[in-house]
Amino acid sequence: MEINPVKGTHDIIADEAYLYTMIENAAMGIASLYGYKEIRTPIIEHTPLFLRSVGESSDIVNKEMYTFEDKGGRSITLRPELTAGVMRSIVSNKLYANGDFPIKFCYVGPCFRYERPQAGRYRQFNQFGVEAVGAPSVYQDAEVIAIGHRLLNTLGLDNVKVLINSLGDEESRKAYKEALREYFSKHIDKMCPDCKRRLEVNPLRILDCKVPEDVEIVKNAPKMTDYLSQESKAYLRTVISILKSVGIETEVDTNLVRGLDYYTGVVFEYHFAKVEGVDNVGALGGGGHYANLLAEVGGPKEEGIGLAMGVERLAYIVKSTLNPNTKIGADVYLMGMTDDIIEQNFVLADMLRGNGFIVEMNYATKSLGALFKAANRKNAKFAIIVGEDEFNKKEVSVKNLKSQEQTLVKLEDLDNVLHSMLNKYYADENPVDTGKEEQ
Amino acid sequence: MEINPVKGTHDIIADEAYLYTMIENAAMGIASLYGYKEIRTPIIEHTPLFLRSVGESSDIVNKEMYTFEDKGGRSITLRPELTAGVMRSIVSNKLYANGDFPIKFCYVGPCFRYERPQAGRYRQFNQFGVEAVGAPSVYQDAEVIAIGHRLLNTLGLDNVKVLINSLGDEESRKAYKEALREYFSKHIDKMCPDCKRRLEVNPLRILDCKVPEDVEIVKNAPKMTDYLSQESKAYLRTVISILKSVGIETEVDTNLVRGLDYYTGVVFEYHFAKVEGVDNVGALGGGGHYANLLAEVGGPKEEGIGLAMGVERLAYIVKSTLNPNTKIGADVYLMGMTDDIIEQNFVLADMLRGNGFIVEMNYATKSLGALFKAANRKNAKFAIIVGEDEFNKKEVSVKNLKSQEQTLVKLEDLDNVLHSMLNKYYADENPVDTGKEEQ
Repeated sequence: MEINPVKGTHDIIADEAYLYTMIENAAMGIASLYGYKEIRTPIIEHTPLFLRSVGESSDIVNKEMYTFEDKGGRSITLRPELTAGVMRSIVSNKLYANGDFPIKFCYVGPCFRYERPQAGRYRQFNQFGVEAVGAPSVYQDAEVIAIGHRLLNTLGLDNVKVLINSLGDEESRKAYKEALREYFSKHIDKMCPDCKRRLEVNPLRILDCKVPEDVEIVKNAPKMTDYLSQESKAYLRTVISILKSVGIETEVDTNLVRGLDYYTGVVFEYHFAKVEGVDNVGALGGGGHYANLLAEVGGPKEEGIGLAMGVERLAYIVKSTLNPNTKIGADVYLMGMTDDIIEQNFVLADMLRGNGFIVEMNYATKSLGALFKAANRKNAKFAIIVGEDEFNKKEVSVKNLKSQEQTLVKLEDLDNVLHSMLNKYYADENPVDTGKEEQ
Repeated sequence: MEINPVKGTHDIIADEAYLYTMIENAAMGIASLYGYKEIRTPIIEHTPLFLRSVGESSDIVNKEMYTFEDKGGRSITLRPELTAGVMRSIVSNKLYANGDFPIKFCYVGPCFRYERPQAGRYRQFNQFGVEAVGAPSVYQDAEVIAIGHRLLNTLGLDNVKVLINSLGDEESRKAYKEALREYFSKHIDKMCPDCKRRLEVNPLRILDCKVPEDVEIVKNAPKMTDYLSQESKAYLRTVISILKSVGIETEVDTNLVRGLDYYTGVVFEYHFAKVEGVDNVGALGGGGHYANLLAEVGGPKEEGIGLAMGVERLAYIVKSTLNPNTKIGADVYLMGMTDDIIEQNFVLADMLRGNGFIVEMNYATKSLGALFKAANRKNAKFAIIVGEDEFNKKEVSVKNLKSQEQTLVKLEDLDNVLHSMLNKYYADENPVDTGKEEQ
């Protein structure tokens, strides 16, 4: 009986996993340059956490959560995003108690949303993100936006556009919601059932609607900018100008509201086009400022700003546009044609691995032809061949599998000789070091 | 309203997260030296996967699984371990189809077991592991055992004891189970309810019982070694001798059976004692050979061997015995006392981060005293102080926060000067490079 993976989940295997890990390490490394420390919160949380943070009017809470009862009868949810858990953790661990703001965290890990599976959308997916809580500042907002921008640049993605908007302060938002409610009431009969619900709970959500007929109606809706207070407008302008000072161009998009209830003030998204002007593959991530989130989950009223990016999406774009070399092969394949030599090779392999070489070897006796095929499949750079003769003389033949050059090396010199050979091999392969984005 | 974390889960924060990541990177790096590639399988799987693999007689399946129905009415389980998912993935993706055995994977990630929370035991915990499937060999078994051993050594743990046993081939195991059933039937009245159940479904499980009265009864139970076939005995002896050839001492423990149903043949555990002979903190991990697991989940009948280690347990031991320095601080703290200087510092910080420095800075104007306190809290190595004077002359003062030495540097030279200063700082701090285990 074959057992299938759960619908909407995917296995990430070998070269692809290497790409994911490379992207995640780049992301966490960049966040650390800005003083963000890693945090890992649990995948399971009490359901009320998400009702209070992500918000009861959001699609996520309404339709997409994996919620179940545990054996103790408590309602548990697989986190649909990571910000809520970070806020909960700041409160549970009283990380605000010493007053050392901002509290800055970065994270990467799996999230779960029961969405309709479609190309590039998974029910279990990985998110990278950062949160900065407390000591709000235009610079803090700009910093978070800059982190995501630097990551995309580091991954080699050009043509990244930063869309930005402000949801304003509480008063501006209230006035704007009122205006939206008035405008959409006139058109709601022609709009989708989701929008009918959104009109009730949060008319801002309607701006996110993807239904073509609704998109047309949204086009003529009141614009947030017309309802922003002078302070909110000035704040947005300052963030834009700070970003400009570090070379990041932004574009104001008045329909940008993001799909979560907790954003207030500045919100942003990164968009990428394979070729300038065409093939916009949608948002690579985004985030925004939140005034009440920490208080909502039981902490003090400290504002924050966060950023999240989907690792699946990044991996897809990097793979399809840059075609990076993520094939890690063996440094050495140890070939043994008799049981005695295999026995010796096992010890030799152990020594070489202790010195940091990636070593493959055969455990069952095989013909030399079969062994070269195996080394090839393992993408090995060098073969070490030990015949009966060499075995007795404590020597091995080292063969460069590209140039086919073969050298006889004394066992005691093997470590050193192999190190120089590999260095030369990689130097010949990459005359100019272009491996920067693979760090 | 404060929302608590789910009972038995834990937040891993900042320095502790750094330690976890360091351990996980070490583990995955070591596995890669043996040619293992990373695999990431989903956290949610169809429940039958674990019934068929982990086994219906195991405590895990009986009492500890997080199982729920998804919105489509399917029974879903949060994986209690990672081997089953890897086997499922090999089958789903037909990774066996090209016949290139062994298939070697390494992995690290969260697992879930509804256990009674206790010191060092969590309901969500992280496991590292490897699996090698196909082309079974005494060397393959030894290789997997050596990987875990090398990891513990690399983490700086000495006093590691490898316990090893064989559960024998199918016939040996059948005879042994019969003998156990006969022996325990005589004592079962005095034993715990779990053991009563175990006697029915799998008497091997009784050997794992931790109830003190039962442990006494187990002591006189028949030993596996007396029921092993000649082949199984020879196999175990050979694995032990191969391990010895690479410097790994083992100790045969005839009661070692491991808590999962799928093991056959060689099983093993790593035990650690803080001080030789005392303070054994229990198994740091273990694994074993399995003959039928891939076939159980719908694949071809290929044997395999696997290893798993708990990251929480490793982190606890490393922290409590080695007290590693996991405090990453900022390289530089940029101090600005006026709005103009903060504005310039933001651009400077961006440039320095682009060159790989970890940079913190203040966004609100503060007194110099407050700024030095902040730099200290961020564990910064250097402060860059820009006063009005320096600001106009495009210069900055760089202050070594340990030696208190202060140097005036031209803005254009800052990157270079800071690089040499930091190199010198770290060289002075670590006259001999002892950072190896932090890689």
